[in-house]
Amino acid sequence: MHDIKLVLIGLGNLGRRFCEVVLEKEAFLADQYGIRLRIVGVADSRGAAVDPDGLDLPTVIHLKRQGQSVAAYPEGGQPGKGALALVESVAADVLLEASPVNLSQQAEPGLSCIRTALGKGMHVVTPNKGPLVVAFRELHTLASEHGVSLRYDGTVAGGLPALNLGCRDLRGARIRMIEAVPNLVTGYVMDMLGDGLGWDVATARARAAGVLEADAAWDLDGWDAAAKLVILTNAVIGVDAKLEDVARVGIQAVDALELQAARERGERYRLLARAEIAHDGSYGLSVAPLPLPVTHPLGRLGRKQMGVVFTTDIYGTITAIIDESDPTPSSATMLRDILDIYAREPMAPVH
Amino acid sequence: MHDIKLVLIGLGNLGRRFCEVVLEKEAFLADQYGIRLRIVGVADSRGAAVDPDGLDLPTVIHLKRQGQSVAAYPEGGQPGKGALALVESVAADVLLEASPVNLSQQAEPGLSCIRTALGKGMHVVTPNKGPLVVAFRELHTLASEHGVSLRYDGTVAGGLPALNLGCRDLRGARIRMIEAVPNLVTGYVMDMLGDGLGWDVATARARAAGVLEADAAWDLDGWDAAAKLVILTNAVIGVDAKLEDVARVGIQAVDALELQAARERGERYRLLARAEIAHDGSYGLSVAPLPLPVTHPLGRLGRKQMGVVFTTDIYGTITAIIDESDPTPSSATMLRDILDIYAREPMAPVH
Repeated sequence: MHDIKLVLIGLGNLGRRFCEVVLEKEAFLADQYGIRLRIVGVADSRGAAVDPDGLDLPTVIHLKRQGQSVAAYPEGGQPGKGALALVESVAADVLLEASPVNLSQQAEPGLSCIRTALGKGMHVVTPNKGPLVVAFRELHTLASEHGVSLRYDGTVAGGLPALNLGCRDLRGARIRMIEAVPNLVTGYVMDMLGDGLGWDVATARARAAGVLEADAAWDLDGWDAAAKLVILTNAVIGVDAKLEDVARVGIQAVDALELQAARERGERYRLLARAEIAHDGSYGLSVAPLPLPVTHPLGRLGRKQMGVVFTTDIYGTITAIIDESDPTPSSATMLRDILDIYAREPMAPVH
Repeated sequence: MHDIKLVLIGLGNLGRRFCEVVLEKEAFLADQYGIRLRIVGVADSRGAAVDPDGLDLPTVIHLKRQGQSVAAYPEGGQPGKGALALVESVAADVLLEASPVNLSQQAEPGLSCIRTALGKGMHVVTPNKGPLVVAFRELHTLASEHGVSLRYDGTVAGGLPALNLGCRDLRGARIRMIEAVPNLVTGYVMDMLGDGLGWDVATARARAAGVLEADAAWDLDGWDAAAKLVILTNAVIGVDAKLEDVARVGIQAVDALELQAARERGERYRLLARAEIAHDGSYGLSVAPLPLPVTHPLGRLGRKQMGVVFTTDIYGTITAIIDESDPTPSSATMLRDILDIYAREPMAPVH
């Protein structure tokens, strides 16, 4: 049995769900992969908890469901202990950095946690876009220098393995275009506007449904899609793209009449992120609300669906779509990434 | 520069196209991955050609375009030399086994070539379903014993990385269902029957378009789809499924009136291969022509599209579709598999 010690930063929706997935999958992972995951340290915004033998996950999950900090964890709880101090002090194999995107603070403290972990020789798995948008090249160089893995499949399009597909299955190809609808809430809001709801009602409903974050502009103005496009472009195409390279238009640019007219034409508006090769071999990056006809590979995405299309020279055009009705697939990308590091042989175990 | 020596068996559509891809990508592969592919031996049904420094690919391609055997290759040509004798005698890193499916002969000579190569410590890449359907477990055990890789992403759904996605990106999940439309010609023929063409006309057109093989029953009776389902089930779910475990119905079971009626209902018939978990945890395997509504993830596949849907417990429902207008993507799966073996770090190179 291979024990893998994890430190988990961030116990919001993704972090807590990940704990639930680990708990639920304990026997399965032991049986299928000979792996036992032990979460030896966790931190939220109010404190941390540590147990070198592995924290009791039902207790951690219970505290978070009660709205408490993990600092209240019996014995191992450490009120006020910050994420970075935890990463510095704890001995573990993998850092899971699942704190929220925080670009207004230069992706901190996530970025420092990742730098520190890589510097200590820990693998890093993160669904947090911020550090990758700010320091994509630097973090890869650091991982490479320390001989460890940096995995972030959950940064783009929830549980859809868009990055894995693009990075691994398209090797050898020239990528002509990447198109992605990597965000649920923008499509949901535009669908409601097309139904005739006003902007305030539509965004309030999205907020009530739990899909619109406190910082609504992050999603609605296209920053989230732009960040995902930057990561896709860096990782899949290998171009050193930055957030400021993306021509970005938010969904407020489309008025309700046009949304209704598009529907009558059989088209569906989605916030489309696109990287497209130009004649000189450079890539133009854009995020904009566009009416997609049903013939477009992403033209029929429902409320719970995200997708990506890769147009290539030798592998044809490949589309991948996920139907994701809760945050479990997004949180499970951390498990996918851990298994990608530790269970390299891809074949399913023989029963 | 890392020289990789390849032996290629089979110079039909896939094999010849692969030579073209290697030729076209020579500079790109050197630049991006530091890899040079040298095809040191090739065999077709009439003979072989060998050059330990790498055959001249334009010459090989030219011979095949002229309808000649590679045995006519200047100097290195060896008329009458069989594939197995070539694999036994040549020193190379990877066997590419691209000969046609031959289940009536127990997948020979492909199966013996693969066994021999693995036994010699060569990696094996094959888009040939036959050997995997006949000896899936044996070949994996052999590869594992010799510490080499066995890759076969091209056996299912052309250039779509259905196996890679299923095997690598769904690790940790319980697969509830796999649905696949892994075959183009059956959909094409059913579309023509739905248009009102008769069976003979429709199959003659498919043959003229080059998508129906000499052994038409292999496709039309669902054997091809069943073979692909067996490989998917073994590789992704880890169940030891055999061809005889598949409940198989060919497309002749649907009459033209029903095809037309389905169209009027807005549905589209496709030959659907399905593995579905039962209450006892076993998987039921079936291949049958089914009317797919537009709401089905594979319900709008066009003539040149194949797809797969994975329904999972923790990664949601993931659909992947390829648009493949010629055999290049299918042949390029051999390049994908080679790079998967030799360029393990998945990130795109930094420009």
